[in-house]
Amino acid sequence: MTTSAKHTELRQLVRSQLLLLLESNNLQGAKSLLVPVQPVDIAEAIEDLPESMQVIAFRLLSKAEAIEVYEYLDSSVQQALIQKFKRQEVREVVDQMSPDDRVRLFDELPAKVVRQLLEQLSPEERQATNLLLGYEEDTAGRVMTPEYISLKETFTVSETIERIRQQASKSEIIYYLYVTNASRQLVGIVSLRDLVVSEPDLPLSEIMTRDVVSIHTDTDQEEVARTIQRYDLLALPVVDREDRLVGVVTVDDVIDIIEREATEDIYALGGLQTDGDNYFQMNLWTVARQRVVWLFVLLITNTFTGWIISSQQSLLEQVVILAAFIPLLTGTGGNVGAQSSTVVIRGLNTDDLNDLGPAKVVGREAIAGALLGAILGIVVIVWAYFLQGNLAVAISVGISLVAIAVLASVAGSSLPFLFRYLGLDPALMSAPFITTAVDVIGVLIYFNIARVMLRL
Amino acid sequence: MTTSAKHTELRQLVRSQLLLLLESNNLQGAKSLLVPVQPVDIAEAIEDLPESMQVIAFRLLSKAEAIEVYEYLDSSVQQALIQKFKRQEVREVVDQMSPDDRVRLFDELPAKVVRQLLEQLSPEERQATNLLLGYEEDTAGRVMTPEYISLKETFTVSETIERIRQQASKSEIIYYLYVTNASRQLVGIVSLRDLVVSEPDLPLSEIMTRDVVSIHTDTDQEEVARTIQRYDLLALPVVDREDRLVGVVTVDDVIDIIEREATEDIYALGGLQTDGDNYFQMNLWTVARQRVVWLFVLLITNTFTGWIISSQQSLLEQVVILAAFIPLLTGTGGNVGAQSSTVVIRGLNTDDLNDLGPAKVVGREAIAGALLGAILGIVVIVWAYFLQGNLAVAISVGISLVAIAVLASVAGSSLPFLFRYLGLDPALMSAPFITTAVDVIGVLIYFNIARVMLRL
Repeated sequence: MTTSAKHTELRQLVRSQLLLLLESNNLQGAKSLLVPVQPVDIAEAIEDLPESMQVIAFRLLSKAEAIEVYEYLDSSVQQALIQKFKRQEVREVVDQMSPDDRVRLFDELPAKVVRQLLEQLSPEERQATNLLLGYEEDTAGRVMTPEYISLKETFTVSETIERIRQQASKSEIIYYLYVTNASRQLVGIVSLRDLVVSEPDLPLSEIMTRDVVSIHTDTDQEEVARTIQRYDLLALPVVDREDRLVGVVTVDDVIDIIEREATEDIYALGGLQTDGDNYFQMNLWTVARQRVVWLFVLLITNTFTGWIISSQQSLLEQVVILAAFIPLLTGTGGNVGAQSSTVVIRGLNTDDLNDLGPAKVVGREAIAGALLGAILGIVVIVWAYFLQGNLAVAISVGISLVAIAVLASVAGSSLPFLFRYLGLDPALMSAPFITTAVDVIGVLIYFNIARVMLRL
Repeated sequence: MTTSAKHTELRQLVRSQLLLLLESNNLQGAKSLLVPVQPVDIAEAIEDLPESMQVIAFRLLSKAEAIEVYEYLDSSVQQALIQKFKRQEVREVVDQMSPDDRVRLFDELPAKVVRQLLEQLSPEERQATNLLLGYEEDTAGRVMTPEYISLKETFTVSETIERIRQQASKSEIIYYLYVTNASRQLVGIVSLRDLVVSEPDLPLSEIMTRDVVSIHTDTDQEEVARTIQRYDLLALPVVDREDRLVGVVTVDDVIDIIEREATEDIYALGGLQTDGDNYFQMNLWTVARQRVVWLFVLLITNTFTGWIISSQQSLLEQVVILAAFIPLLTGTGGNVGAQSSTVVIRGLNTDDLNDLGPAKVVGREAIAGALLGAILGIVVIVWAYFLQGNLAVAISVGISLVAIAVLASVAGSSLPFLFRYLGLDPALMSAPFITTAVDVIGVLIYFNIARVMLRL
């Protein structure tokens, strides 16, 4: 029962058996099938079911389990279920969700449905939800949970443990306890570990840590993630402008943030603008809309290149073989530039770049570009001569390649810095400009070198 | 003292002042400067110092703090310091490091230094280190810590708390406690939270959870990360082939794994092969070596394309303007293909793709490609006609663009599945093959359509 292999087996069993049991109307069998299964795996099995069966399966769960499973469901399934819930079920499930998960769900629902749901929540939960909905998207305020345990510094260890016993079920995280003063300002932190190993009658003021790392409600979620990662924390307290404690961001939310941000970066580098939704669940029009923008920009770039090439028509008519090397030059330039911009963009978004300034990074990349250009250039000269037998053309291609590789490295490494300085997303902006620089300037370099070499 | 803004100020102050104080030999001042600073921030400040000063600054720290700071240092600085450590310091710092961090350091040191260091460790720590070093790189065995608290199910809550008091300092994580049977097999898990809220004389068997999610020592670290993320855990127990508990992977290590793996994926998509080191700390020869492989592959691809173009020399000599649209067609095809492969590769590496089969994904991408090709094709026909005034050429370009977009989408979405099926890394393998398919086949399609349209 404990090994991962058996665990994966169970997961697959549930996914294959649940539908069969429900179709044969064997609800008792389905219920017992789900007993040893983890909530996230039950959620996965429910997502696999046809829509009509989802609510049936969901109702087999105990109240406590239903809430957990619901939090793990995809937001599309959450939305479908909510339409089918009775008033009573909304109270049981949505009211008991943790506020940050609830806000994530409400973000995706139509405003009208959100208003109806808010009315059905208990006053306490409604207040918590409204608080979170009041903060900007992608900030600490939006992803935090307002359910934490806060204590006064005069409490003793044993009083505190008693309090935790009472409040444990209401708080998402109890491994860190926050100590506040009379104005609700955060003054210290006590870990459950500290509590357990301390003498029962010590006051918290004696065991708490006073240097607390905290963030503001309007801190960007990416910085929240970096901070938790940097200090190896399980949770991070969130304070308002007056340093009053208002919530806590937990490490499990941070893992999801890091992964979502990485996906956004990867998509941006691959030429897709996304708004964080799952690509594979979008309809094809949304897909086309998100992809076509970037393709258009690059199309315009390529048209420029085409225009440059056709302006050299007389040269091409004399030595038509020059055209054969254009894809090689622009292609290699594009690849060198993509490599440089990839490492710089990723470096800017993680701690890898540390404190190397732009000048140092761009200088390094220029040298790397020259090195790569020289290696590839020599190969290309031999290759091109062997292929076409025209030494002047071959040398033109080789020299151009060195120049283009340096140009591409410099553009690829400097533009991300520039865009960040201008407050634009480097991952999204860099590629089109790098391609333009490399293609247009690269082709011009090539034709001019060829003109000199061929004495035309 | 608690807000993030003040915190960042302090960080910057330390970085700017530490060197000044050390240079003026004001060791007492430097020491007091570091008192309120978090270990990771001290590590950062030490990394900034010239090498000769690093060991001086390090020796200002208390023993307990020195160990923590050392774990946060870059491995290059850790290595430089270790050469300067006295035998006594090695015992104090390296011996006290957590075993997983120590193994990460040992992985980078020369074998001879590792042997010397191992001799200086206490027998207990030497054993823990050797155990971890025995597992394959990038597996759970290598990243786990063997320092966890394991208990018998007959222990009562109060006995357990007593035990934690004694062992807390030796264990990296005490929020989960693991219950094992007589053969050291994992049979249950108790959270510190469960302990605190339970009656003192209950036995663990009554409060523990028996359905434990665990992994094997040889599980790939990426799967370890997925599992922790999926089940929202703070730590994950690691068992051997006989289901015996041998270690624990903690969530802070998992965050680093997720980020490293994302960087590897991003680099691979950008055409760099990395081995997980920080790109900005590599020397330029390593950089060139890691980048040139992919550039060579693409160079060969581009030479193919060049060869195809030059084989059409007679056609080009008749209608030289056809050459002007080659970059546009191959460029757009490459971009459409890159978009498709980006989403599929990221989908394979996260849970986003869920259980959509290859056929469904490739079919979807083919339709998206046709849609994008049609939109762009119409624009290009107008544009090309306006630019060159040759309608037959313009229509050839437009039709080719639709065909190439579909081809690129299908290649871009199907090749990652194929490479994964063959056990190769899709992120690393896909791009060259997609480019080849799009460039070579795309240019052939273009020339043949042009031949028909121009009746040549």
